Amino acid sequence: MQRLRFIHQLGFAFLVFPGAEHSRFSHVLGAMHLAGRVYDALCAKGNGLLPSGASSRERRLVRAAALLHDIGHAPFSHSAEELFAGGIDHEEMTRRLLALPDIEEAFERWGEGLATADVARLLAGGGDPKERLLAQIVSGELDVDKMDYLLRDSLFCGVRYGSFDLDRLLDTMLPIENPETGAWGIGVDEGGVHALEALVMARYYMFTQVYFNVTGKALELHLNQWLGEQGMSWAAEPEAFLEQDDVSIWSAMRRSPSVHARAIVQRDHFPVAFETREHLTREEQERFEALLPGMVQSFGAGNLLVSRSAKDPHRMRSSRVLVQRYDGSLEPMEEASHFIRHLTRIRRYRVYTPPPLRDAVAAALREQWDSGFR
Amino acid sequence: MQRLRFIHQLGFAFLVFPGAEHSRFSHVLGAMHLAGRVYDALCAKGNGLLPSGASSRERRLVRAAALLHDIGHAPFSHSAEELFAGGIDHEEMTRRLLALPDIEEAFERWGEGLATADVARLLAGGGDPKERLLAQIVSGELDVDKMDYLLRDSLFCGVRYGSFDLDRLLDTMLPIENPETGAWGIGVDEGGVHALEALVMARYYMFTQVYFNVTGKALELHLNQWLGEQGMSWAAEPEAFLEQDDVSIWSAMRRSPSVHARAIVQRDHFPVAFETREHLTREEQERFEALLPGMVQSFGAGNLLVSRSAKDPHRMRSSRVLVQRYDGSLEPMEEASHFIRHLTRIRRYRVYTPPPLRDAVAAALREQWDSGFR
Amino acid sequence: MQRLRFIHQLGFAFLVFPGAEHSRFSHVLGAMHLAGRVYDALCAKGNGLLPSGASSRERRLVRAAALLHDIGHAPFSHSAEELFAGGIDHEEMTRRLLALPDIEEAFERWGEGLATADVARLLAGGGDPKERLLAQIVSGELDVDKMDYLLRDSLFCGVRYGSFDLDRLLDTMLPIENPETGAWGIGVDEGGVHALEALVMARYYMFTQVYFNVTGKALELHLNQWLGEQGMSWAAEPEAFLEQDDVSIWSAMRRSPSVHARAIVQRDHFPVAFETREHLTREEQERFEALLPGMVQSFGAGNLLVSRSAKDPHRMRSSRVLVQRYDGSLEPMEEASHFIRHLTRIRRYRVYTPPPLRDAVAAALREQWDSGFR
Amino acid sequence: MQRLRFIHQLGFAFLVFPGAEHSRFSHVLGAMHLAGRVYDALCAKGNGLLPSGASSRERRLVRAAALLHDIGHAPFSHSAEELFAGGIDHEEMTRRLLALPDIEEAFERWGEGLATADVARLLAGGGDPKERLLAQIVSGELDVDKMDYLLRDSLFCGVRYGSFDLDRLLDTMLPIENPETGAWGIGVDEGGVHALEALVMARYYMFTQVYFNVTGKALELHLNQWLGEQGMSWAAEPEAFLEQDDVSIWSAMRRSPSVHARAIVQRDHFPVAFETREHLTREEQERFEALLPGMVQSFGAGNLLVSRSAKDPHRMRSSRVLVQRYDGSLEPMEEASHFIRHLTRIRRYRVYTPPPLRDAVAAALREQWDSGFR
Repeated sequence: MQRLRFIHQLGFAFLVFPGAEHSRFSHVLGAMHLAGRVYDALCAKGNGLLPSGASSRERRLVRAAALLHDIGHAPFSHSAEELFAGGIDHEEMTRRLLALPDIEEAFERWGEGLATADVARLLAGGGDPKERLLAQIVSGELDVDKMDYLLRDSLFCGVRYGSFDLDRLLDTMLPIENPETGAWGIGVDEGGVHALEALVMARYYMFTQVYFNVTGKALELHLNQWLGEQGMSWAAEPEAFLEQDDVSIWSAMRRSPSVHARAIVQRDHFPVAFETREHLTREEQERFEALLPGMVQSFGAGNLLVSRSAKDPHRMRSSRVLVQRYDGSLEPMEEASHFIRHLTRIRRYRVYTPPPLRDAVAAALREQWDSGFR
Repeated sequence: MQRLRFIHQLGFAFLVFPGAEHSRFSHVLGAMHLAGRVYDALCAKGNGLLPSGASSRERRLVRAAALLHDIGHAPFSHSAEELFAGGIDHEEMTRRLLALPDIEEAFERWGEGLATADVARLLAGGGDPKERLLAQIVSGELDVDKMDYLLRDSLFCGVRYGSFDLDRLLDTMLPIENPETGAWGIGVDEGGVHALEALVMARYYMFTQVYFNVTGKALELHLNQWLGEQGMSWAAEPEAFLEQDDVSIWSAMRRSPSVHARAIVQRDHFPVAFETREHLTREEQERFEALLPGMVQSFGAGNLLVSRSAKDPHRMRSSRVLVQRYDGSLEPMEEASHFIRHLTRIRRYRVYTPPPLRDAVAAALREQWDSGFR
Repeated sequence: MQRLRFIHQLGFAFLVFPGAEHSRFSHVLGAMHLAGRVYDALCAKGNGLLPSGASSRERRLVRAAALLHDIGHAPFSHSAEELFAGGIDHEEMTRRLLALPDIEEAFERWGEGLATADVARLLAGGGDPKERLLAQIVSGELDVDKMDYLLRDSLFCGVRYGSFDLDRLLDTMLPIENPETGAWGIGVDEGGVHALEALVMARYYMFTQVYFNVTGKALELHLNQWLGEQGMSWAAEPEAFLEQDDVSIWSAMRRSPSVHARAIVQRDHFPVAFETREHLTREEQERFEALLPGMVQSFGAGNLLVSRSAKDPHRMRSSRVLVQRYDGSLEPMEEASHFIRHLTRIRRYRVYTPPPLRDAVAAALREQWDSGFR
Repeated sequence: MQRLRFIHQLGFAFLVFPGAEHSRFSHVLGAMHLAGRVYDALCAKGNGLLPSGASSRERRLVRAAALLHDIGHAPFSHSAEELFAGGIDHEEMTRRLLALPDIEEAFERWGEGLATADVARLLAGGGDPKERLLAQIVSGELDVDKMDYLLRDSLFCGVRYGSFDLDRLLDTMLPIENPETGAWGIGVDEGGVHALEALVMARYYMFTQVYFNVTGKALELHLNQWLGEQGMSWAAEPEAFLEQDDVSIWSAMRRSPSVHARAIVQRDHFPVAFETREHLTREEQERFEALLPGMVQSFGAGNLLVSRSAKDPHRMRSSRVLVQRYDGSLEPMEEASHFIRHLTRIRRYRVYTPPPLRDAVAAALREQWDSGFR
């Protein structure tokens, strides 16, 4: 847990947005707090589905899961999150950390009946229907992870577009049983459609403006390059993993003569030579990928850092978020909302290169890319 | 001016949103303040187009125009704004009030060279190119009227969706010369696209949720009915007009035995029997209008109060708001913004009726309306 | 209740602070909301003293009392609150209004067991010890009336000094049994001392800057003069009282040729000729009162409007607000707080007079007042 | 400059207030921004004393000085700020850093006529009367350092009491010539007295609650002990000094087996055994100091970490902040304000000790300390 104090919530974003110096530790505290609030909101409208009371087992469980959901995060958060040794991922690391004796022991002393296995099961999606509902509080379309990071990151970055009306959203949330599948999910009543739209748009803006920021992406690419050069990866073994955080990696980069470490430590990163529009179609994406091998041949792999930013603005369709009309009828969120239907997937390429090659790379890419439209 | 203290900014909305008790007086003070801030923002980036300094003639003029732009407003603001005697409108009344000796005299004493004719000319759109730019500060797609009423009304109504990042918008505003027409207009630089999108969406939400609120519209219809019954209209003669405000009309309604006055004073309005979707097409609109004569024949004109809410979310196209890219190139706002292109015109009908007729009216309308879709 | 929509929360303050157009109706809604929040806060820490649950009888009772505590308010709120006919006061009028058949009936239909007599008893201080605790939520040193009006009035007046950290205060409130008297009261734990200090100082500032504003006091004096002239008072009979609100009085003042009505309606009030410091001692107060008969003789009673503003910044001593230290020990708030001990009673005189007499009145008062200090 | 990104603005406070992860880098950016705003405020009311315009030399100078005023800060900010080698202090280090060739060169390229010597002179108090006024913007009773750190630290710590009405304060600030000394200083007009009081009280609360927090002080003492053990100090030589920041010190502490390093890294600090009241008199202070040698003899110097927190709430008297009354007369701030006169110096001792000794140390100190009052 305390290790998260030394992992920047937004990787290198603090070098672009000076306020973004907050850690993943503050995020998980916020997520835990919101998990209690969402639980209470669902409980109040659940007709006995969830037991009330500040210390009910279900409420403590969902708060514990929110607190612990990010302990497996690698240094610099999402910046290089695929570099785990042994082919494991972030979720697997969380499971391994939960199984450490220290954590087991902490649960035994203060868990009042909760065990790490309960948390692990919830983080994996939950067992029975009630747990599957609780699991959505921590991970789903309307989860506390998203609610906290949007409000927190927009506050710390000093941008207004990441905010939404949290109180209104909480007031209008309710558990809804999907009549087709019989599964319980988190939905909103009709009065909450606008608040939920605002959350989706806040997320859209945060991805396009902050999380996929052109400079931040450059620094992430350099980090990945540097780790590759050093033959480094995130330890698969939990004790060793706990030693790795932003402080340890930053210290190592300071000592390293590598061009990629200098790029980060001195903020002297490769400039962007080319970037596509924000919403490539799948065909355009394929066409761009097809250009890259030729570019690598011309300029050398080490001289082309390629960023592939991609994100769905929401998954309302697959996650079946339902809206309960004032007359009691149900409607999928993507039908209730005009805006949400029209948001398209973010898909953008950027190519960074050393300054001397910039013009040549830019010209080559522009020519080949534009020729596809003739 | 002081009369505006006794005209609710949002008509009867205070009976729906308890905080909405603010007057048009506070709105025009706010608009005046923002006019100075917008002036300063345009001035700072105008390369000498506008003279700087807190007391420049242009700045004082645009502030005076913002302060006075609403003096011709009828009681309850927009609730019954078409009921002027003599076929005049709100703008004509403003002109007549500006010509009153008291106002002329005030300008002579404190205007330091400004005359009411200058204000009237600016409110009419301005004379030379510079004045036409100044006129857009008071009335245009990016005017201080809109900026103030969105922030003010959402604050007083207690809704979050009417807010936007004013400071960011001001920072990114600049005067842009339209290369096709040669006219100066207010535009934004590339960094302001999101702030301007947020303003447009704020306006969209405020119209659908607050200004076109189902109960507020009922009360407005009753006001119009009552004024018709009484043979009342807003005086065309300025001195008489100044006697008419919310206090005088409300006092008269309290004394009136009319069902429509009772509906307002006792908050015992007709319920809504039928409402359409929010975005009718033009064909649907025509079809709905075609149904109404038959309904009137069946139920009686006095028993059917019909509300026709309609609003364009923006007029970016016709008003040619331009975005200046970081490379200096220009692009129309509706091309720069995905969201703005997809917003469609609000067009919704609602039919209110006395309680005993509600079910019958609802059934009749539903049947005829739905049959059109078979 | 609905009548309160037409009574300005701050009397004539909207003529000084343009945003202060809010009504007492919005205040009582806010007080009701806060009553629920304070109830929940006390309940959570009361070890079973108060029953939990959103619909417990006690919670509904305290919310109803907060909603209804101001129904007996005269037009323009505190501006002329002593002018009740028949020697009754505001509290007595509230009792009479509660006894109206309409209200009785409303409680029978929706009260779920609550009766108007319960509300009246709570507003009178409560019966058993638990009720006496509940009564303090509505009226006491830490009551929801104060909490709401400070936050609301400072928001609407646009002044920052009336705000305090409501959430922190609620988090630190708890029911404390006074070991000397055995009575339950509302106290704070040690961590809440600063939040409570901030509330007391917010109140102090609001009184000195807003509620005792020099222009607002002038308008109040004119109102009292005008009502006296007209032989008007607030009806002692509840049905007649309900007809009296700001709209009816304002309409009457508009039609009145009296100099006092013109002073208000045209905002052409008497200027202040003399004002004392903000914190007169009791001796100074007596000395000032002793000067007044001579002044009246010289200038005529009708030409001297005298405002006597007086307020204790708090009554921590008499109301025995206790602080619970982290070690469980108790301490009176006025000992725990350095600031609170040093706040002195506000006591200030102002004399207003017609413009032609201003200099003479000012000179006469200054001479006599200053001579007292030689 | 960039080094400040790796120095926590509040030392170890982030281990107590989880949001307090902000760096001194964001503080100096904020101070620079405010310096421009204060300059503009003084300029607007200075009757030509200061040249207007965003790019006037004076404005750029004061902004540069605000940006650079903290570059000499040691790791963990104020936590161990006395440990400079060679007897130099923080101000001397700032001067040495300003003289580095890199900084000189940056000024030559982008300074448009400003030189590092100008900044150094301003930070030292300024030369001519106008510069001495500008110097107060960066360092004085009403300086941007204070304004920024109060607002920033209270935001990041999540406490409300550190905030004040910045806009109001800026609106009421003006340059005032002291009639006795002829020197120009920053004062406020009568309407700003409350805003300035609020700033002073915000500072008072931040010191007592945050900056002198009991846990934060423990961690600072451990840092000082550890640095002493290691024979470490902050380099007097600027190039070496630039290598020292929170990351480098934290990395070293992680590798250290010292009990003091463990206390910080593992958050396993000595508990507090005894603390005095918040406002010791000078006599009490002397008496406490006199107790310490005996305690050291009994328990060993290494087992007693003594924290001496002391701060004046303001220096209005010595810095002669003046208030300009509405009638133009001047009054010293400490006379205009009731509150400010009554604030007393903070002076508090705390003694921390290893857990096994806690009870014995507590008992010994309590006995000796209390005996002084018999």
